Amino acid sequence: MDTAEFRRRGKEMVDYVADYLENIEKRQVYPDVEPGYLRSLIPEEAPEQPETYEDVVKDIERVVMPGITHWHSPYFFAYFPTANSFPAILADMLSGAIGCVGFSWAASPACTELETVMLDWLGKMLNLPEEFLAGTKGKGGGVIQGTASEATLVALLAARCRMVKRILSDDPERPEADIISKLVAYSSDQAHSSVERAGLIGGVRMRKIPSDSKFSVRGEALRKVLEEDKAAGLIPFYFCATLGTTPSCAFDYITEIGPICNTEGIWMHIDAAYAGSAFICPEFRPLLDGVEFADSFNFNPHKWLLVNFDCSTMWVKNRTDIIAAFKMDPLYLKHDHQESGIHTLHTHTHTHTHSICHWQIPLGRRFRSLKIWFVFRMYGLRGLQDHIRKHVALAKEFEALVRVDERFQISAEVVLGLVCFRLKGSNDLNEALLKRINSARRIHLVPCQLSGRFVLRFAVCARTTESRHVQEAWAHITQLATELLRHVER
Amino acid sequence: MDTAEFRRRGKEMVDYVADYLENIEKRQVYPDVEPGYLRSLIPEEAPEQPETYEDVVKDIERVVMPGITHWHSPYFFAYFPTANSFPAILADMLSGAIGCVGFSWAASPACTELETVMLDWLGKMLNLPEEFLAGTKGKGGGVIQGTASEATLVALLAARCRMVKRILSDDPERPEADIISKLVAYSSDQAHSSVERAGLIGGVRMRKIPSDSKFSVRGEALRKVLEEDKAAGLIPFYFCATLGTTPSCAFDYITEIGPICNTEGIWMHIDAAYAGSAFICPEFRPLLDGVEFADSFNFNPHKWLLVNFDCSTMWVKNRTDIIAAFKMDPLYLKHDHQESGIHTLHTHTHTHTHSICHWQIPLGRRFRSLKIWFVFRMYGLRGLQDHIRKHVALAKEFEALVRVDERFQISAEVVLGLVCFRLKGSNDLNEALLKRINSARRIHLVPCQLSGRFVLRFAVCARTTESRHVQEAWAHITQLATELLRHVER
Repeated sequence: MDTAEFRRRGKEMVDYVADYLENIEKRQVYPDVEPGYLRSLIPEEAPEQPETYEDVVKDIERVVMPGITHWHSPYFFAYFPTANSFPAILADMLSGAIGCVGFSWAASPACTELETVMLDWLGKMLNLPEEFLAGTKGKGGGVIQGTASEATLVALLAARCRMVKRILSDDPERPEADIISKLVAYSSDQAHSSVERAGLIGGVRMRKIPSDSKFSVRGEALRKVLEEDKAAGLIPFYFCATLGTTPSCAFDYITEIGPICNTEGIWMHIDAAYAGSAFICPEFRPLLDGVEFADSFNFNPHKWLLVNFDCSTMWVKNRTDIIAAFKMDPLYLKHDHQESGIHTLHTHTHTHTHSICHWQIPLGRRFRSLKIWFVFRMYGLRGLQDHIRKHVALAKEFEALVRVDERFQISAEVVLGLVCFRLKGSNDLNEALLKRINSARRIHLVPCQLSGRFVLRFAVCARTTESRHVQEAWAHITQLATELLRHVER
Repeated sequence: MDTAEFRRRGKEMVDYVADYLENIEKRQVYPDVEPGYLRSLIPEEAPEQPETYEDVVKDIERVVMPGITHWHSPYFFAYFPTANSFPAILADMLSGAIGCVGFSWAASPACTELETVMLDWLGKMLNLPEEFLAGTKGKGGGVIQGTASEATLVALLAARCRMVKRILSDDPERPEADIISKLVAYSSDQAHSSVERAGLIGGVRMRKIPSDSKFSVRGEALRKVLEEDKAAGLIPFYFCATLGTTPSCAFDYITEIGPICNTEGIWMHIDAAYAGSAFICPEFRPLLDGVEFADSFNFNPHKWLLVNFDCSTMWVKNRTDIIAAFKMDPLYLKHDHQESGIHTLHTHTHTHTHSICHWQIPLGRRFRSLKIWFVFRMYGLRGLQDHIRKHVALAKEFEALVRVDERFQISAEVVLGLVCFRLKGSNDLNEALLKRINSARRIHLVPCQLSGRFVLRFAVCARTTESRHVQEAWAHITQLATELLRHVER
């Protein structure tokens, strides 16, 4: 494909993308295919000779689309949202063309620098404490990770390193393996499975703190566990607080937990993967109060801030804590430069343009900050706030509908764009309802379990979801519920 | 931005991308900016109100381009290549529009399934042993990771888990921390720094095996270290072999190392990040002989196979080894599904469409296999082979130029697209030459260190590099060398 053909095909693809998103609500939101459907639709081997673009493009509808769960359909209410906006798609086209691999400042200065400045922009939008910003002289700063799972892991590794060093400075003879075997990390029993997984990867003990009746961890619950563990000779080193849990969007009490962590020398990381975007609205910012006690904070603009995947933003108070976790001290760095033949030209890296590869698991990275820059400028803070507020209002609208139908109950407080609800009745009944909903394929939901109860989650997801979609969804759900209850009574 | 505006702006962006790539050689390959250049060029905060697209787009040339290292300029000979092709950019636009997050089969069946089939296609192109393919009934299979660093880490974690389990099955009372403190992982002293970093993350000892005079690890060198370590009570569990090292593109002798690893129960992972793409050519496939002894194999199509970043392909012989490393056994999985409210609909996941999130560090993922599908079909195997062969031929052409100039020497065998060379003389002299080259900004190179010598690396990188660029580069280098030598003699 030469440049001339790319000009033509690229413009066709722009139209295909526009058509797809413009007409997405006419597509069935969840596919009909069975596992293994795709293999038989395409050859077993790559072609020896080139095929034409027409050959490829006609297979999009024949092979790919029948197996797509349409996350951007306004009838998609499952999981949490994933972002999609036109400015982000445009920025990503540019990122693909530039195609730099930003593992160091020299590898593409703009890539590192725009990222640092965008994380300051976003930090200011969230009204993060000054310490988290890179500014021109701070010790903190932000970085884009691929996913919240990576941020959780990076924070855990930094915390592990900090605690090991601290203990070794008091007791240089103590074997590192002995220290690590005593370390214990904590999270809510409502926390995402990636937190437990970070513990597994880091080879440390992980303990879940019981949440309260509103699915939040209180300071008292943490304190009780800490006392048990310290009495047993363990070394608490990391607490991953969740703001906006996956099951029910519950918020841990970081104003209570934070001071305890600070006193005990425990690294507090905040995972606000979904909810974090809402904190750009002053009315939701109080949910982030207590962030001043945190060592690191992360959320996913790729969920709810209109920046396409992947873009998970993470701030730390002290960059050197993160860098130390990967043992990239100046000496090693220098050695590394000489040995590997890369990053060599700019060993004089300025603190504020420090090679970002020392903040993350992968070495390479796309030019992801372009997406943030395009989206923030073309929406403006006001436009982004409008997007958040619209989704929250739609969730409240759905909640109100549920509340007037006496057959149903709300299962958790509705704070942002997620409504947890269920039929009054058994888990089996609710499981049967969900099965009917998802089998009908008109909308798509996933469940969760709260206090042993099977609960349906209704998350406002698509950028284009409007009141009529929520109303239609509820009419559909109640109709299926009526049919189900009639069937059960028989 | 509404759909109508996206149609217009998207087409303008296609033209911008086409213009950028068509005229890239007229741009200065390496930028003039100093660290911190960007911050002063843009506002300190995100705008309150939306800006127009014109505002944004004019800043591409004003703010971004002055800080770009142009990786796709035919005068870029630094690091290793990173891929860029029109079919991949088109596929990525589609991926952005679909915007699914493929963490489970149900989250978008096509995303998981196309990936599995594409990895089989590519595995067949490489003539990988059948055991590495998913096929319809195998135990092995492939997955796309973000980077080779992640693949190295995932393999190390799987190896750690396998060895711990094996030892616990013989001696169930032995503390896990004691086992982990005795584990030792190995790689060449030429291996990429990400291997050492994987050891740090996994909390295991890491030891470098001395390479021979051609910068390759031989079986004998490994055997010697293993004997020492076993005698010291350590437990060897992981060897990361490199095919195509970063400094000089050297190849470890996996036909010698592999049988030792198999006998000793050591997991052999192969990191062929750069060189792997070449193995689709029958004449280079012998470099992969011995892969039959490996437990896992990884390379980056996003380096040299025309699939834009990120696309790092990894195959394992036994999928359950990887899944076990993240302790995602069926019971836990089931628990996880109920708790998190995600992945719930398809707990009956077929073995061949197993949720890919259990193979990797991040949970979410873009629809990356679309890029492979577009590129492989539009180039065909033949077109991809032509691309590899052209780059190797250009490297040989450069090598021949170096060899006829008696002031220079070749520092390592030229096997693929990388030439390591230097002026006969001191390290300082060569460092001075590199400085002159990079200061002139006409081409871009990075150095490496081989056996204590400062060496210049000339890597053929851009898709559009032709003989004339190589000839010009050499004329330029020799002219600068002449000036330098004249200056030194004075």
